[in-house]
Amino acid sequence: MSANVQNSIMIFGDSITQGGWETGMNGFGASLAHRYARKLDVINRGFSGYNTEWGIPVFEQFFATTEQQKHLPIVRLLVIWFGANDSCLVQSPQHVPLPKFASNLKHLVNLVQSPKSKYYSPKTRIILVTPPPVNTYQRKANLDARDPPILLDRNFENTRLYAETVKDIAREEEVGIIDIWTKMWDAARHNEQALEKFLYDGLHLNDAGYQIMYDAVLETIEKTYPELHPDNLEMVFPGWATIDPNNVVASVQKRDAERSVGVV
Amino acid sequence: MSANVQNSIMIFGDSITQGGWETGMNGFGASLAHRYARKLDVINRGFSGYNTEWGIPVFEQFFATTEQQKHLPIVRLLVIWFGANDSCLVQSPQHVPLPKFASNLKHLVNLVQSPKSKYYSPKTRIILVTPPPVNTYQRKANLDARDPPILLDRNFENTRLYAETVKDIAREEEVGIIDIWTKMWDAARHNEQALEKFLYDGLHLNDAGYQIMYDAVLETIEKTYPELHPDNLEMVFPGWATIDPNNVVASVQKRDAERSVGVV
Repeated sequence: MSANVQNSIMIFGDSITQGGWETGMNGFGASLAHRYARKLDVINRGFSGYNTEWGIPVFEQFFATTEQQKHLPIVRLLVIWFGANDSCLVQSPQHVPLPKFASNLKHLVNLVQSPKSKYYSPKTRIILVTPPPVNTYQRKANLDARDPPILLDRNFENTRLYAETVKDIAREEEVGIIDIWTKMWDAARHNEQALEKFLYDGLHLNDAGYQIMYDAVLETIEKTYPELHPDNLEMVFPGWATIDPNNVVASVQKRDAERSVGVV
Repeated sequence: MSANVQNSIMIFGDSITQGGWETGMNGFGASLAHRYARKLDVINRGFSGYNTEWGIPVFEQFFATTEQQKHLPIVRLLVIWFGANDSCLVQSPQHVPLPKFASNLKHLVNLVQSPKSKYYSPKTRIILVTPPPVNTYQRKANLDARDPPILLDRNFENTRLYAETVKDIAREEEVGIIDIWTKMWDAARHNEQALEKFLYDGLHLNDAGYQIMYDAVLETIEKTYPELHPDNLEMVFPGWATIDPNNVVASVQKRDAERSVGVV
């Protein structure tokens, strides 16, 4: 992609991640890319409709092996955001049973963090994200309107259980957590129908929902991995006003974005 | 950054490029990233305030050498968008004389296209972009309001000459061209003050300006490098509805995004 000068944040998930670059939706991924411009690239690895069961073999193809990592920019932060599809009810092909969802999330974390893994990446920090709460009123209306209509495929309580599981795994694995389920539920004042402020179809985030997510990502980074907060990173190449016209090459040399940690 | 599974579009330029991921501005870069999701990554290499003179030594640090390219995703498309700062009037440290601007652009193209270059990348297609027209009414008001006030640093005609030069170089070098200068000038019906519809400060694009740029990028790709148009690319990993639950690993194998060309 480019020489090994700028590391990255990779966001891995389902359609809620994939749609996070849409400007008309105030996509959180694009907003993070803007905030991290010239510091870290923010890479979209969202796969619409995918659950963890399908995500794992895809991850094993797109995430660099330890051997390949020698030649590639470092993924300094991996955000893993699944559960919205895994928590589909059993009639859906997207359904993944809760214990399997838990073990899949653990497996993903271990693929990156275990020294025995082919994908071991010791400089990659991990944040898990809970699925957002479902508004079954909106979701049912959306599915009823399809031709042919589709039976309601998610319910509120089941998605809550998957969100709880994500929190459990984050605690057990000692990685960062973004509990977007609770943030949105609190913002809706514990009223399922009020979730329509944050979801455009009962499942996917709208502008206001993505704003909550954007703020939550930066909050968790600040709390858990402050060395990766944009305010704590330098631009890899310096601001134009510091360039010495008589000594251009010397004054535009790349720098460590992580001044305190010295990684890059 | 990731294993070598998804190639990229790299957009190299000044603040107008760097700001192109801002969701609140309808940033063209973020919109392209969304449009190309799961096909090509779209990478921001915009450097606020930079001209071609400063951009070259930076390019030589972030663009992979031919040797490094073996291990990295391919930059399938390099969009080069300079001129807004090069065309500053001579009193500005950002000013680059027109003949030097022309030779710098040629040099950038040759860094990628010449087999003798250390950065030779035969699979990289190039598009040059003209600077947008300046609205000196807006720009003067903006600079007058600063503390201390700054003398008007650009003029309409001079930027037009730089835009003409970009078109000349694209013709000579036989690379793609996006003439955003003319598109915006035509959209403003050849009325400088009406450019405020597309520029928020006389220099930088607003929502409507970035919409013109987004449309223009896709139009030029379709015309010049149709094999890279998103409609002609497959998703690297298949859509979820085609996954066979009894044969998951086989059904999520990565594919060539460029089905007709077979590159990746």
